[in-house]
Amino acid sequence: MNFVSMALSILKIPILFLFLFLFTFIPSISSHPFDPLSPLEIQTVSSTIKSKFNNLARSLTFHYVGIDEPNKPAVLSWLANPRSRPPPRQAFAVVRANKQTHEFVVKLANGKGSIVSEYVYQGTGFPTLTLEEQSEAIELSLKHPPFIKSIEKRGLNISDVVGSVFTIGWFGQAQSETKRIVKVLFFYKESTVNVWLRPIEGVETTVDLDDMVLTEFKDLQVSVMPKSEGTEYQASTMRPPFVAETNQIDVHQPLGPSFVVKGHIVSWANWNFHLSFDMRVGIIISAASIYDIDQQKKRQVLYRGHISELFVPYQDPTVEWYYRTFMDAGEFGMGSSAVALEPLHDCPPNAVFFDAFHGGQDGKPVKLENAYCMFEKYAGDIAWRHTESVIPGELIREVRREVSLVIRTITVIGNYDYILDWELKKCGTIKLSVSLTGIMEGKTTPYKHQSDVKEEIYGQLVAPNTIGVNHDHFITYYLDLDIDGQENSFLKTKLKSFKTDGSTPRKSYWSVVEEEIEKELDARLRPTQPVELHIVNPNKKTAIGNKVGYRLIPGPMAVPLLSEDDYPQIRGALCDYDIWVTPYNQSEKWAGGMYVDRGHGDETLSILTQRNRDINNKDIVLWHTIGFHHHPSQDEFPIMPTLTGGFELRPTNFFERNPILKMKAP
Amino acid sequence: MNFVSMALSILKIPILFLFLFLFTFIPSISSHPFDPLSPLEIQTVSSTIKSKFNNLARSLTFHYVGIDEPNKPAVLSWLANPRSRPPPRQAFAVVRANKQTHEFVVKLANGKGSIVSEYVYQGTGFPTLTLEEQSEAIELSLKHPPFIKSIEKRGLNISDVVGSVFTIGWFGQAQSETKRIVKVLFFYKESTVNVWLRPIEGVETTVDLDDMVLTEFKDLQVSVMPKSEGTEYQASTMRPPFVAETNQIDVHQPLGPSFVVKGHIVSWANWNFHLSFDMRVGIIISAASIYDIDQQKKRQVLYRGHISELFVPYQDPTVEWYYRTFMDAGEFGMGSSAVALEPLHDCPPNAVFFDAFHGGQDGKPVKLENAYCMFEKYAGDIAWRHTESVIPGELIREVRREVSLVIRTITVIGNYDYILDWELKKCGTIKLSVSLTGIMEGKTTPYKHQSDVKEEIYGQLVAPNTIGVNHDHFITYYLDLDIDGQENSFLKTKLKSFKTDGSTPRKSYWSVVEEEIEKELDARLRPTQPVELHIVNPNKKTAIGNKVGYRLIPGPMAVPLLSEDDYPQIRGALCDYDIWVTPYNQSEKWAGGMYVDRGHGDETLSILTQRNRDINNKDIVLWHTIGFHHHPSQDEFPIMPTLTGGFELRPTNFFERNPILKMKAP
Repeated sequence: MNFVSMALSILKIPILFLFLFLFTFIPSISSHPFDPLSPLEIQTVSSTIKSKFNNLARSLTFHYVGIDEPNKPAVLSWLANPRSRPPPRQAFAVVRANKQTHEFVVKLANGKGSIVSEYVYQGTGFPTLTLEEQSEAIELSLKHPPFIKSIEKRGLNISDVVGSVFTIGWFGQAQSETKRIVKVLFFYKESTVNVWLRPIEGVETTVDLDDMVLTEFKDLQVSVMPKSEGTEYQASTMRPPFVAETNQIDVHQPLGPSFVVKGHIVSWANWNFHLSFDMRVGIIISAASIYDIDQQKKRQVLYRGHISELFVPYQDPTVEWYYRTFMDAGEFGMGSSAVALEPLHDCPPNAVFFDAFHGGQDGKPVKLENAYCMFEKYAGDIAWRHTESVIPGELIREVRREVSLVIRTITVIGNYDYILDWELKKCGTIKLSVSLTGIMEGKTTPYKHQSDVKEEIYGQLVAPNTIGVNHDHFITYYLDLDIDGQENSFLKTKLKSFKTDGSTPRKSYWSVVEEEIEKELDARLRPTQPVELHIVNPNKKTAIGNKVGYRLIPGPMAVPLLSEDDYPQIRGALCDYDIWVTPYNQSEKWAGGMYVDRGHGDETLSILTQRNRDINNKDIVLWHTIGFHHHPSQDEFPIMPTLTGGFELRPTNFFERNPILKMKAP
Repeated sequence: MNFVSMALSILKIPILFLFLFLFTFIPSISSHPFDPLSPLEIQTVSSTIKSKFNNLARSLTFHYVGIDEPNKPAVLSWLANPRSRPPPRQAFAVVRANKQTHEFVVKLANGKGSIVSEYVYQGTGFPTLTLEEQSEAIELSLKHPPFIKSIEKRGLNISDVVGSVFTIGWFGQAQSETKRIVKVLFFYKESTVNVWLRPIEGVETTVDLDDMVLTEFKDLQVSVMPKSEGTEYQASTMRPPFVAETNQIDVHQPLGPSFVVKGHIVSWANWNFHLSFDMRVGIIISAASIYDIDQQKKRQVLYRGHISELFVPYQDPTVEWYYRTFMDAGEFGMGSSAVALEPLHDCPPNAVFFDAFHGGQDGKPVKLENAYCMFEKYAGDIAWRHTESVIPGELIREVRREVSLVIRTITVIGNYDYILDWELKKCGTIKLSVSLTGIMEGKTTPYKHQSDVKEEIYGQLVAPNTIGVNHDHFITYYLDLDIDGQENSFLKTKLKSFKTDGSTPRKSYWSVVEEEIEKELDARLRPTQPVELHIVNPNKKTAIGNKVGYRLIPGPMAVPLLSEDDYPQIRGALCDYDIWVTPYNQSEKWAGGMYVDRGHGDETLSILTQRNRDINNKDIVLWHTIGFHHHPSQDEFPIMPTLTGGFELRPTNFFERNPILKMKAP
């Protein structure tokens, strides 16, 4: 017994590394139109663009480098016939030069790049911030003599001060007046690494990122500094008593994982899909199809799915907090802010880890180690079962385990950690979940006890001198479902009450009334009445004539509580509704708009849908916004136990019958 | 590698049996007031009651035998001082004799029983059906000559006919006219075990259970019999192609499980609770407390929690279906209908299984083998984490795995399998989930294709000649929370929009407005506005003055769609609201009433709350009804992939800080 577990634990580490090696170093077999750019391709793109600008290159900053999503018909025709010529491989880059935002499409062929198109963006808003310019802005601030004086005035040690960049949103200024500026706020790391709970409030700098100059310094007030005591979360700092330990649980696959990864194509059980990573959105699942054993063929489900935007408005309208209304994907990048996953803990022992690359500010490739992981999950759940006791003398019991495939990435935007899972089930269900953990954003207060609080504090007193400020998280997913083909429709299957004709003692029952939604304005929903939401292929029917489809089981839905005319709500209109359906348009991927930093909200889903286009029997895209209102509590101090929410896309008359009926009993 | 896994698989089976042995055969160390009756005690109770009835004993039927829940103050004072004398051990039994329902309280002492009270119930409704009388009613029907003739007329083989008992609800009849009768319906097992999809519709018998006589036989029509082809789900009947297999996942705890079970007391990590099993409700968790490492003491959370009722109204109002409006707990028993769990598949390999006992119709103990299981769950999830990148030159990453404790039972009511989990997390969260699987109730139809359907069919065509009938599942949980003590209050923490004073560019924000609910009528909720629901102890505050409490994160909520005056809705009023709060009353445990079979709905939560009692700073009970509207689909034929819903009770200012902060890094 002991001998076995010892042997196992000795073996485990090398096995893990063996897998890491196998899966992260397999070279791309051949390039797939959806493959992310390789380091070499990133390099080629940036040098192609740099050469175009000649001597200006020093002030050129790369804000996005990724693939230019290929034309959908071209991809579909190539997927249908993979021996044909793939669509041309093209990159898309957003660069900032001469205080202008340039969009480039660069064709990649034979290791060389050529510019296909160049466009100078004229609209509102600025591209995603680079990590490098954020560091520069912080450094600039920390060296600013008046700032140093302010820190000294407070009796704080300048070497213990750290900074963080805060985007400032947009509050009605004219486009000519909205510059690419950010605020830098400061935190104190003396005797704790939990800086988010020790803000140096009252002091802030404003930095113009284009000019990289500090344009403003404010020392508004000397705020109280909460004690560091109790804010640490590192194991190394902990003293007894500890929470009772529980015995180790080993998760082990003697034959290794069942998924096969070739290039970026993943095959697992009945699923096949392309798995990619993008600096703006993180994980992208494309061309996902499921093998139907009855029809003996692969059937399309999802052409492309990823996070589109993550809107986090704080609910403190005072001068130092009112502007904190972040658009995390567009401002900071869900992919470029992904953190290296810790083997064994961030993902279970049977997980396989993958590296990713994105373009740095200088256009050079940056490696993200262990950017995402994939594992088979068995949580003790049951895929289906039945015990039959109605047949005398026979014991019938059939049980099948639920084993699913999970792809995970974790994005950390400053204080918050977002654990983002895609889960694929053998029964055809796709489950997307968002788990929130990390540190809450603390605001200092002179109050030490709730009974002293006689005014609105815009949050909850979570420790002496510390308020956990109220805020929301609205996450919009872009889901280009292609259910068994490209042309789909959106159905509201309303559950309605009916009165009977009195021929039986029953007075009432419910039944369904299907409503096929014709236009995108009518597809905007915040369901308050009982309704099932279906994406169906009206051109395909099951053998007995039902519409082939998938059902959305919505996630946690939060009603936005900002007033309609408030600027953050105009920018964050993606949460006006929980559900939106639009016709597919290659350029429409961003629920909050493409350029959200300081943007005026003129490209949100709310604006896009105003054209009220046809969505019936069209190539349509489902957008689903899940939301969390967060009124903090002490139990979340100094680090938050994970809170999870998610939603499911579940086959509904997609299959002729339970697709996992014929799963062998283990 | 191979050697290790071989060694493991050789060892696994004996280890499993070792655990089974250890955990199921440990004798009760000393009897706890909440311990279920032992087989000997069941025997004592029934012989005590039988002797009271003398010669009548033959027609005496036992419908419930369990503990008489001891007086709460007595239990609490004993829990506070376990060396004191425990409350007297008493059993509660419901027996049917002379067409009357008798309630007995029997005192158990020194292996002997004495009747403490006897009461003849005069209200509406009848007790839970026994398994034995259901079998008798079926047998009686199968032997009924006109029935046999009807079967022969259809060219069916009588030896392939099985029956099942259906309760018939109540539809306005006077109490004097409502007899204890049921319908028996018939199914065909020829060439499939999936009888639920092969109903012999048009034929039914009515049986008076008190007299055990067949009172009516109907042969209304000859319906079509759907093909057996495609209805089987047994692995042994399956032919290729199979769903692609995935590699084995071993879940293994080298040191065994971390929980300790003494008698019925379970200790695991920071949790301590009493775990019991009851023939009506299944799992009961009592006296659950969590150890607070900061306060260095156990703190009460839940005095008693269990399923109260499960209401399943079908939505077909026609003559053969209208009455199918089941109350599964009160009519059939969630505990007595629990099925033996299959090791390795119904629960993971590290699970420990427990037997349970209930009283049979004759009052003798009946053993339920593997009635429930307990296991530690590690699904690859994260309890909390943070990567800190704001501190230059330091990589800070702390991750803690989420390991929880699950207690599972599976109840099968005819065709439906309910997987019922309690999950306790180290962070203090209690998660309850219901997973639905098994077979849908099929109705035959002449239609073979959706395009032929020109009328209301009250469901979905799921196979040729088969309709999956629309229905609901409403599950009400009884949750006697005692948050840090007995007196608690119910708070609506409403999230409201506010306009700013215009001193910053922000126009609006949300904040919370607490409303302490005084009366039980105001506690009935179907949340449509953003609200957090808290049970707090108004007499306890955290060190900084916040109300100590737990928050309900509600489960799937389904609006009932029957008309208010429809009889099933009157009986099933437990779903009028999703949330109810009542003052604790030892006799009020049943959301649909104590006697629901044919009951008139005169003891539902809707009635109980009409007294509009005070609930502020009282010993209160939270009732939460979760609901699923089920409009079937083909993907659920012939057996349904599991659909899960659940809710959480989550500490909110219960702890001074994150209670699992000081969890050792693995």
